[in-house]
Amino acid sequence: MRGDDAMAVKDVRPGVRNEEGIATVLGLLKQQFGERFQTGQSFREQHSHTTTYLPSQLPDGVVFVESAEDVKAIVRACATHRVPVIAFGTGSSLEGQVNAPSGGISIDFSRMNRVLAVNAEDLDVVVEPGVTREQLNTELRDTGLFFPIDPGANASIGGMAATRASGTNAVRYGTMKDNVLSLTVVTADGEEIRTARRARKSSAGYDLTRLFVGSEGTLGIITSITLRLQGIPEKIGGGVCAFPTVKAACDAVIMTIQMGVPVARIELLDQMQMRACNAYSGLSYAEKPTLFVEFNGTEQTVALQSEQFSVIARECGGESFSFTANAEERSRLWKARHDAYWASRALAPQLNGLSTDVCVPISRLADCMVETQADIEEHGFLAPIVGHAGDGNFHVLILFDDKDPADVARAEAFVARLNARALSMGGTCTGEHGIGQGKMSFLEQELGGAVDLMRAIKKSLDPQNIFNPGKIFAPAEGIADA
Amino acid sequence: MRGDDAMAVKDVRPGVRNEEGIATVLGLLKQQFGERFQTGQSFREQHSHTTTYLPSQLPDGVVFVESAEDVKAIVRACATHRVPVIAFGTGSSLEGQVNAPSGGISIDFSRMNRVLAVNAEDLDVVVEPGVTREQLNTELRDTGLFFPIDPGANASIGGMAATRASGTNAVRYGTMKDNVLSLTVVTADGEEIRTARRARKSSAGYDLTRLFVGSEGTLGIITSITLRLQGIPEKIGGGVCAFPTVKAACDAVIMTIQMGVPVARIELLDQMQMRACNAYSGLSYAEKPTLFVEFNGTEQTVALQSEQFSVIARECGGESFSFTANAEERSRLWKARHDAYWASRALAPQLNGLSTDVCVPISRLADCMVETQADIEEHGFLAPIVGHAGDGNFHVLILFDDKDPADVARAEAFVARLNARALSMGGTCTGEHGIGQGKMSFLEQELGGAVDLMRAIKKSLDPQNIFNPGKIFAPAEGIADA
Repeated sequence: MRGDDAMAVKDVRPGVRNEEGIATVLGLLKQQFGERFQTGQSFREQHSHTTTYLPSQLPDGVVFVESAEDVKAIVRACATHRVPVIAFGTGSSLEGQVNAPSGGISIDFSRMNRVLAVNAEDLDVVVEPGVTREQLNTELRDTGLFFPIDPGANASIGGMAATRASGTNAVRYGTMKDNVLSLTVVTADGEEIRTARRARKSSAGYDLTRLFVGSEGTLGIITSITLRLQGIPEKIGGGVCAFPTVKAACDAVIMTIQMGVPVARIELLDQMQMRACNAYSGLSYAEKPTLFVEFNGTEQTVALQSEQFSVIARECGGESFSFTANAEERSRLWKARHDAYWASRALAPQLNGLSTDVCVPISRLADCMVETQADIEEHGFLAPIVGHAGDGNFHVLILFDDKDPADVARAEAFVARLNARALSMGGTCTGEHGIGQGKMSFLEQELGGAVDLMRAIKKSLDPQNIFNPGKIFAPAEGIADA
Repeated sequence: MRGDDAMAVKDVRPGVRNEEGIATVLGLLKQQFGERFQTGQSFREQHSHTTTYLPSQLPDGVVFVESAEDVKAIVRACATHRVPVIAFGTGSSLEGQVNAPSGGISIDFSRMNRVLAVNAEDLDVVVEPGVTREQLNTELRDTGLFFPIDPGANASIGGMAATRASGTNAVRYGTMKDNVLSLTVVTADGEEIRTARRARKSSAGYDLTRLFVGSEGTLGIITSITLRLQGIPEKIGGGVCAFPTVKAACDAVIMTIQMGVPVARIELLDQMQMRACNAYSGLSYAEKPTLFVEFNGTEQTVALQSEQFSVIARECGGESFSFTANAEERSRLWKARHDAYWASRALAPQLNGLSTDVCVPISRLADCMVETQADIEEHGFLAPIVGHAGDGNFHVLILFDDKDPADVARAEAFVARLNARALSMGGTCTGEHGIGQGKMSFLEQELGGAVDLMRAIKKSLDPQNIFNPGKIFAPAEGIADA
């Protein structure tokens, strides 16, 4: 854990603090929330950014909220005294989203973790923001339904909505943008609004749901989420197939998508990642670019789809496709994918890891990955690649020494080249991690003048800039004048 | 065709006209666009609202644009002189979206109808706003791909994006919100922005794409659209099944969705609609609530799905399920669905038709339809119902005498009751037609305080209120002060 002064990472600089307002709000919240309000160093550290190399910037206090009324009260106090408000789920965001560059109040949602309504016939569920993905699926188990979005971490649903998360099965089930039906949100005036009704579709006015999904807490505080659910598949089959080159593997992905094979997951691990997995778990996968696929359906459709994929893989030069519909066998086959992160870290346990992501049109995925591998090799990085290949989205985990400013600069320069490469191919600087503090300059490169529209919207909904200031489109400059 | 003074429909009242600004802009556009600028009565009438009973409100002139540069020039002139700008595709919107209550300039996109890029490997396409749905699919035919959204009318893609259109196969392929990857838009300062890159997913900042989709031309003028495409199914199968009650048919729909049968279309026609279809085309369908279903896939999966549906239908009390995978046979079976609109109009050719839509959670679809049928019967309306049942969305076509103010009032009162009913069941006042002028009061009922956020966003992106004023959330009050 490092303090504010650990290093000067681009765009992650302290903002102007409204000391007087902060002091007043701390007093008010202490009075109102008692034991549920904490200002100790360890609480503040836990609620600043902890999951990457970005320096931590601590909030001044943490409130453990239990209701939307609590949230309203905090927002009103902070609005009156112009103090930042930062929503906190589980803290698994990767681009500094929960940092507090201008200080302020962190709202911890871990006690707002109730499933409020399961509407099984409508395949939807209403949850509080602190419900985690795994908790939700555990609570749903008896209904025959599940919530498909899986970003890896056991993130909170509120955080997943706020960062427009996705993950391995977005290729089949979409991202949070596709799976949030409606939100309730506390806005800058301390009132709670509902963005939409529970109907599966609507043309009623501006799509406020999608505006808040992915807004990273900068427009308001989400207090409940209505999610679409899916029926638990009768059968799940999975398999693994090695390819001679990244290009060959990507061709198989493109053909699979183009032929409409409804693959549930299709993940691409590169050579270095496979080598890391073998070393980590004593496995003997071929150390070649490898696709991990999964099919959801009935016994018949899973068999049919795996046969279709097998033909495609062979046509693209894939080696033999190991497939199974047996759950235990499948876990064994998929082990490398599940262990990918820790296997990568184990390549150099003394180093820190920077997890970054880009997303390109799938026709350019092979080019983008191959050029990135060349860059990694040229600079001598340990940096395995794992891709959500069906979406054209991939992650690089760069291992580097976060105590060595030169190594930090090398890692940052690599990230900058990776983003420039993705943008030059019609891609985006982030498929699923969001902008936070880490990618603000790339967002400007990606969307140019459109970022001014985002600023205008931000200003219209949060004129005092109290909601998560210093994120997405501008380095922290403190709270705006009223 | 009626002029502004035909009748006083609620919320559809003339706005304040900026006569001086309009006169200046007419002169400027005449000079710049010559023959491509038209101010004749017939052009103006064609570009006002023509597809429902809402009174027409004519623009002052029409420009036939050929490029984004043309659009920029018009927006700049109109912004400088504070004159309304209204985008026009094919004029098939149903809630007065193209009316000009404060006058102004209609931008006709029929000459911006080029397919700019087909990216077959990425399953996407870039089009100008004037490309129609049918034209697009004709141009795509050789690629093996198609664009699935089908709102019935041969609407323009720009118009479909602006109203967040959907239609019969939204249950499988989603709505425009799910199928637009990116837009270019001319904003209030006359500059063109791009809302997103061509990657299939992104977490880069606010979701401007979804903000413009469904904004009905009130935030800017769309100049190009990047759409997701689907592979043309190898096989399409379809069938028809009558049910004893609406409830039984809805139960079959719920079970089909819940079991994850990937039905491509599932349409519910009520008793009156089936009677109208029989009378119109000399058919002999059972005059009972009837589901029309379609499956897309391979020979095997279509057979599998139709068998799954057949079992479900039987369990829910359906009569024998007529199914075929033969294209000609399928057209014959589906004839009633295709003819539904004209069959309904033929029930009383001397009357006008008001097409309205609501959408509820599917668990409430039966209740909502049954109560609506009772209302229709109680008031002696001719008003058949067709539902996109898989989405909980249905349409009522009320036949009434638009020359009789009492009958107009009766029809409006019916629509008000229908909307109140849908809202009371967790539904929305429009699943796919949009708000326009016709549903502004229902939007307020539906979303309350959230509409203030829409107003704030509108004001931030269009401070002078030049883009399609008098739509979505406020009756026309003329152009705002700068």
